[in-house]
Amino acid sequence: MAVRVTPVRLAALLVTMSCARALALQRNHILGRATRGFSESKRVYYRTLYFDQQIDHFGFLENGLFKQRYLLSDQHWRQNGPILFYTGNEGDITWFCNNTGFTWDVAEEMGAMLVFAEHRYYGESLPFGEESYSNAKYLNYLTSEQALADFAVLIKSLKASVTGAQNSPVIAVGGSYGGMLAAWLRMKYPSVVTGALAASAPIWQFTDMVPCGDFYKIVTQDFAKSGINCSKSIRRSWMAISNVSSTGEGLQWLSEEFGLCAPLKPQDVDDFRAWLQETWVNLAMVDYPYEANFLQHLPRWPVKVVCTHLQFDSGVTDRQLLHGVSQAVKVYYNYTGSAVCLNMSETATGSLGTRGWYYQACTEMVMPMCTDGIQDMFEPQSWSLQAFSDECYGLFGVRPREHWASMAYGGKKINSHSNIIFSNGDLDPWKSGGVTKSLSDSLVAIVIPDGAHHLDLRYSNEHDPQSVIQARALELQHIKQWIKQEQV
Amino acid sequence: MAVRVTPVRLAALLVTMSCARALALQRNHILGRATRGFSESKRVYYRTLYFDQQIDHFGFLENGLFKQRYLLSDQHWRQNGPILFYTGNEGDITWFCNNTGFTWDVAEEMGAMLVFAEHRYYGESLPFGEESYSNAKYLNYLTSEQALADFAVLIKSLKASVTGAQNSPVIAVGGSYGGMLAAWLRMKYPSVVTGALAASAPIWQFTDMVPCGDFYKIVTQDFAKSGINCSKSIRRSWMAISNVSSTGEGLQWLSEEFGLCAPLKPQDVDDFRAWLQETWVNLAMVDYPYEANFLQHLPRWPVKVVCTHLQFDSGVTDRQLLHGVSQAVKVYYNYTGSAVCLNMSETATGSLGTRGWYYQACTEMVMPMCTDGIQDMFEPQSWSLQAFSDECYGLFGVRPREHWASMAYGGKKINSHSNIIFSNGDLDPWKSGGVTKSLSDSLVAIVIPDGAHHLDLRYSNEHDPQSVIQARALELQHIKQWIKQEQV
Repeated sequence: MAVRVTPVRLAALLVTMSCARALALQRNHILGRATRGFSESKRVYYRTLYFDQQIDHFGFLENGLFKQRYLLSDQHWRQNGPILFYTGNEGDITWFCNNTGFTWDVAEEMGAMLVFAEHRYYGESLPFGEESYSNAKYLNYLTSEQALADFAVLIKSLKASVTGAQNSPVIAVGGSYGGMLAAWLRMKYPSVVTGALAASAPIWQFTDMVPCGDFYKIVTQDFAKSGINCSKSIRRSWMAISNVSSTGEGLQWLSEEFGLCAPLKPQDVDDFRAWLQETWVNLAMVDYPYEANFLQHLPRWPVKVVCTHLQFDSGVTDRQLLHGVSQAVKVYYNYTGSAVCLNMSETATGSLGTRGWYYQACTEMVMPMCTDGIQDMFEPQSWSLQAFSDECYGLFGVRPREHWASMAYGGKKINSHSNIIFSNGDLDPWKSGGVTKSLSDSLVAIVIPDGAHHLDLRYSNEHDPQSVIQARALELQHIKQWIKQEQV
Repeated sequence: MAVRVTPVRLAALLVTMSCARALALQRNHILGRATRGFSESKRVYYRTLYFDQQIDHFGFLENGLFKQRYLLSDQHWRQNGPILFYTGNEGDITWFCNNTGFTWDVAEEMGAMLVFAEHRYYGESLPFGEESYSNAKYLNYLTSEQALADFAVLIKSLKASVTGAQNSPVIAVGGSYGGMLAAWLRMKYPSVVTGALAASAPIWQFTDMVPCGDFYKIVTQDFAKSGINCSKSIRRSWMAISNVSSTGEGLQWLSEEFGLCAPLKPQDVDDFRAWLQETWVNLAMVDYPYEANFLQHLPRWPVKVVCTHLQFDSGVTDRQLLHGVSQAVKVYYNYTGSAVCLNMSETATGSLGTRGWYYQACTEMVMPMCTDGIQDMFEPQSWSLQAFSDECYGLFGVRPREHWASMAYGGKKINSHSNIIFSNGDLDPWKSGGVTKSLSDSLVAIVIPDGAHHLDLRYSNEHDPQSVIQARALELQHIKQWIKQEQV
């Protein structure tokens, strides 16, 4: 099922896709290896296991099972010691496993077992095998509630079956959508998990909970502070694209300037803008303080590097400006110089992960986004639920329920829960929907001034800023305290 | 869909049906009236309203709506005052409304709005109208999770739409299965309800949580202490039934002695026993200290009255004993003397409420029951999940998931929750699965020594024992405290 890029999708879907897109892009990377810093790498050891999971936890007519994949590492685990349980998000679990170095870094000290559970409909955990995405009926079991039930059932089963795990406290850990799931797992199944570390988890990125423009404002701020005229240049670029793309020659020039694999046709210009917009978003998300290959192989502080190509003042011509944009974009897509051409459509169309997240965005995970071109560097685009809903119906035969997630997970009134850390990076656009102020002694917000998207979950690195080192120490302190309380 | 009474069902289904059966039996009563004590009655005023509710909260393919009925009384409500929200159980909501006098008694003092929400698939709240029970596909949305979501969505909508209700604290109130739902609503949707009064709510009556024989032990104890030889006589009666029913003449005698509407055939004897067993259970449940017409029109302390007919010593003949049993049974079925005959099949086959609860028992609400004939007064019957499952499959095309309810609702590990009162009566068989010891300052157990099934939820009565008066006062105190905390 191919997903068509439309202007509506620009504001509506594309950006909420960024997490998923990250995964899709990441598929090419070597799995089974984790990168520590950039130059170092270490092999992580885990067993790949499969659990027979109910396809439908909330109805009894569909009684089928599917194989949920999970990865288990017990090399440092001491009996009765804690289990750090990664609540997998919208993609291949091995990739998450390799990008959640924090858990690997602390496993020995904590005597912890690590479990990484794959989210249904992603990676290998396909309820209806290759047919899982083939129709609306099969897709019907792709919800966060079902995924949480999977996690809870798996944890309960592990504790019952693994010798010495019966009394092991379980801490849910997750980042991004996985962080939302970690928090929600604690909220909905507190008998199963003692606490949760929800990193960069935008649990409030829903209708009427945060202003729809905040996300793009943060993206813009990142660029604004990373180089003179950087965000201004990007803001100007949209008009420049309109001007240049208005002629056939201009389109050809654009295609060549950007080194696109397929030359732009007039009807592709909206997709081209969407692709650029998403590129800027992704850059903000992965603006890490060291060379890394999370979404792409990138230099340290990539936004700063990108911005060196975008320091134009108002006298710049359209083509000069777009040349700078193309140089900037290539920092993201071709830092290593190995790309023959830039494949815009590959980024814009869905991988398995993207398709799944599209479906989730079209059902429960309705995250309104908007831009005004003033407080952000993008073209003004209001949020239209109706347009979004119609597109969803066309794609999947379902319509979003915009208030459901807020209903199901408590909206902003979550203060009766306990033992959740919400960590957010100031550089991360998803901070817009995050919990950034502590709500109680045990609902703790940690803000990492120099952090992009769940930097704290990554392996420690010699270039880590002090703020993330402190954040991790504080996280560990809370987690140890919960475990201690549990074991009393 | 007729439900066949089989020996398996005896141990498996019948007793877990008692709540539902109560409702089915109660359908004949005058609705729209509430009985205060016995001789007094007062009319209660409410509006009957309907809310467009999602048929499936947990999947997006089925996007249909149905009309959920709810009753609303705001005659005593002050703006911003609390809402007491009755979480309807397996039956017609008007009947629950009229049998939850506690809320009517306290409404004025609290300035409270009362809302009684009907549980989907019962009363008028039928997701697929008259067809709702016609097939497994339509029945698929009959689960406690869906019902809780209905309640949560309705509350959120009421608070948004009723002027002055936006900041109203909501307290969930329920008895029996409705009490389970009240507790679970607080556990799963704490953003929606500030606290819950869960009266006679057997939230632990699930596999591996309490001994399967406890329920019938309590029934037996009630009879044992209500009259000399009472439980012993009932224990002996099963053999006497076998003996007498072994001949055609004996069957005829039995039929006449009990005044059955349809004469017993040899194949009906198991049903006859099941019917008697359930009668004893129901009597224990409604052993109230005053004349009342809850399940049937009954004298005060009905078990004591029943036991006056069962004071036999060991020299009694089978027919003498069974004559006593028939007199005892008629206390239950014909106290007013208006019954022409006893309709055994009417009790044993399902009304709408019974069918629905059967389905719920066959899916999530798997409550193992067993008897040993030693610690209880019944014939020994072990619990067989396999037999139960096979029967469920035959009836509804579904199989029970015995561990799901425990998984979904935390099993015995619910101490991280807050603001729930669990009240249980010592006379109530369902106390077997209740929370009878406080788990924290805000997870409070109240035991009512002289209480049968949710006596505390009934109207106050001049014959109320001190224990229930105290219980209600304590309940009110906790509820007021929660409200005060919420309003700070």
